[in-house]
Amino acid sequence: MPLDWSRSRRPGAPLDAGARRAAPMDWIPAQPGDPIREIDTPALVLDLDKFEENLKRMADFATRARVRVRPHAKTHKCAEIARRQVAAFGNGVCCEKLGEAEAMLEGDITDVLITNQVVGERKLRRLARLARAYAPARLGVCVDNVDVARQLATVCEAEEARVEVYVDVDLGQNRTGVESPEEAVDLARILVASPFLSFMGLHAFSSLAQHRRGVPERRESVDRAAMRVSLARDALLSANLPCDVVCGGGTGSFLYEAASGVFNEIHPGSFALMDVNYARNEHDPAGPSFEFAMFVLSCVMSVGEERATLDAGLKAFSTDCGPPRPTFAGWRVRGVSDEHTVMMPAEGSVPVKLGDKALLIPGRCDLTVNLHDWIVAIRNNVVEAVWPVDARGALY
Amino acid sequence: MPLDWSRSRRPGAPLDAGARRAAPMDWIPAQPGDPIREIDTPALVLDLDKFEENLKRMADFATRARVRVRPHAKTHKCAEIARRQVAAFGNGVCCEKLGEAEAMLEGDITDVLITNQVVGERKLRRLARLARAYAPARLGVCVDNVDVARQLATVCEAEEARVEVYVDVDLGQNRTGVESPEEAVDLARILVASPFLSFMGLHAFSSLAQHRRGVPERRESVDRAAMRVSLARDALLSANLPCDVVCGGGTGSFLYEAASGVFNEIHPGSFALMDVNYARNEHDPAGPSFEFAMFVLSCVMSVGEERATLDAGLKAFSTDCGPPRPTFAGWRVRGVSDEHTVMMPAEGSVPVKLGDKALLIPGRCDLTVNLHDWIVAIRNNVVEAVWPVDARGALY
Repeated sequence: MPLDWSRSRRPGAPLDAGARRAAPMDWIPAQPGDPIREIDTPALVLDLDKFEENLKRMADFATRARVRVRPHAKTHKCAEIARRQVAAFGNGVCCEKLGEAEAMLEGDITDVLITNQVVGERKLRRLARLARAYAPARLGVCVDNVDVARQLATVCEAEEARVEVYVDVDLGQNRTGVESPEEAVDLARILVASPFLSFMGLHAFSSLAQHRRGVPERRESVDRAAMRVSLARDALLSANLPCDVVCGGGTGSFLYEAASGVFNEIHPGSFALMDVNYARNEHDPAGPSFEFAMFVLSCVMSVGEERATLDAGLKAFSTDCGPPRPTFAGWRVRGVSDEHTVMMPAEGSVPVKLGDKALLIPGRCDLTVNLHDWIVAIRNNVVEAVWPVDARGALY
Repeated sequence: MPLDWSRSRRPGAPLDAGARRAAPMDWIPAQPGDPIREIDTPALVLDLDKFEENLKRMADFATRARVRVRPHAKTHKCAEIARRQVAAFGNGVCCEKLGEAEAMLEGDITDVLITNQVVGERKLRRLARLARAYAPARLGVCVDNVDVARQLATVCEAEEARVEVYVDVDLGQNRTGVESPEEAVDLARILVASPFLSFMGLHAFSSLAQHRRGVPERRESVDRAAMRVSLARDALLSANLPCDVVCGGGTGSFLYEAASGVFNEIHPGSFALMDVNYARNEHDPAGPSFEFAMFVLSCVMSVGEERATLDAGLKAFSTDCGPPRPTFAGWRVRGVSDEHTVMMPAEGSVPVKLGDKALLIPGRCDLTVNLHDWIVAIRNNVVEAVWPVDARGALY
């Protein structure tokens, strides 16, 4: 790969009003056609065969279960992956943040739902302007507060922007969402009264249900959630309010939302990439299983007595759900620090030498992807494409 | 703050060879002159008075202790902060990665030491070209392997690039570094024989020592480390090899490295920003203490029974050393998820309403900074400047 050492980039001087961030590094870990061993490390690697197989299994499930799949883009933050998901499922994608939604709209996704609240005059105005700038693309958002609903209506009217709105229902997690059917009705009345807002229905997500390990626990958790959501839906319908969409669910729970008779749209994200944490869930044979498709490629950068040290650590993958799983046969992770992972040989370990490359399966895919600027897409151990993580760091 | 909705940015299309990353989001959380309440959230906020006080306390200590301070830029990854540290201490900075070093050199830092190994033909060539491109700026690196030392010498000769080299000494952590004085001598012989390499001395860092909570444990840990390093230094001198610099140490240990009589350069990083984890260390009155200078500014985006939910989570701060500490009086963190922090009121809690802004003190500053594109520098609750995190995501 050619290296360009021109010094044309401007230094990272303090910004005045209106200035832009200094140009990003021109480092790209690989080029199409590179063999996997030539990829610079640490790099986020996507196995396209596995990724496409995961999409196919979910699409087959959705057809059988007659449920709409709107995959969550918080997991991959990559417009190219989102475009492939739109092609596979025929719907738009979900986002968590305005910045993610912007990246997806900019990446030609024409139907984006922010499954989170957007609060405050500045953010609401940004939401409205995004909706107007990318119309006729659809942009949706969740609300759980009447003051925010009124402010959103006012801002959208002022900006002449159409926004789709879902009432967020708390499933007992007590994090966001309305806590009673009555609150859902109060909110829906405000939303339907606004000429610039389209009230779509209910959103309800339980992050707690996703990693209950046993099948019965996960199913029971979703059954209770669905009951709660159905009460809110019934309250809306009894009040002559619409409720076309009931949506939510993730990779650990979508099977049960789809079977609930309440949800008609599911929002799994991690299934496309997978991680160690989701693989620990007991598989329910009633639904599809998914393959590890995403890895952190790392390099042995120091060797010593009974250890090999990799050049990837907490700045290259998350460990909030445990360390990554190395694919070196017989090696196990002894410790992880900011820039290093120390591996120890165990029984049957293959010999490892300086410069060897190791694939690590991340403990959690969402937080790992957010640490990377690039996704290196490979097939049969050759680089097929390099995609930017368009919404990396989109906190806002 | 004016919002620009021009659609001039190109979409995140797949890259061909030579293509560049799509332009970054033009989101900037604040502008100079904004009051703190106007800063968009979540945002990384630096209190300049506290930051400058931390630099001053460390500089005063260095003068008293007659030790050189080369602050570690892995903590802040920000060229503007590095320039202020160069002004305060008169030396260069440390980095962990080539990409960080590039950002610092590009940001007019003229003396950069990579306190880590750089391995493989591609990375070594990049190192050499960086050194040549920014000469006469000084660029240093660590080695712990004779094959890498020879390859580095060959590459630097081919590229006609001057690189300063330190032998990395393992302090018993068994992560990187040579394990015996003899290995240090073997490496130094290779380095001094190369016309393009300048052998500077020894680097030794114990990350394990940094967070031993008690003063006696930290001091004892460094005393043992210094003994190990002194054996390597004596072996070099006995072999008529130079050893001008012995360097290492961090915010938890620098006091003892400075007092060891072995180290003449210290590399603390976190002292400038501070975090909950370092604040848990027992303070040694023989050295300076440091103030919390860095915060994640967050916003209450949902309220419910007995809880307030903030719009910042695991994508805005690290929790590998525990959750952040909220500065809302009487509130405590109940749970953290990817995009949310749920707080519960406790005794004496102040009332909190939707849209209120909260400052969170991160558990770990290094990993938190790496999640952000911008540092909002404030003084007396007014934004003074907004600085890019130039080396954010510089994994390579």
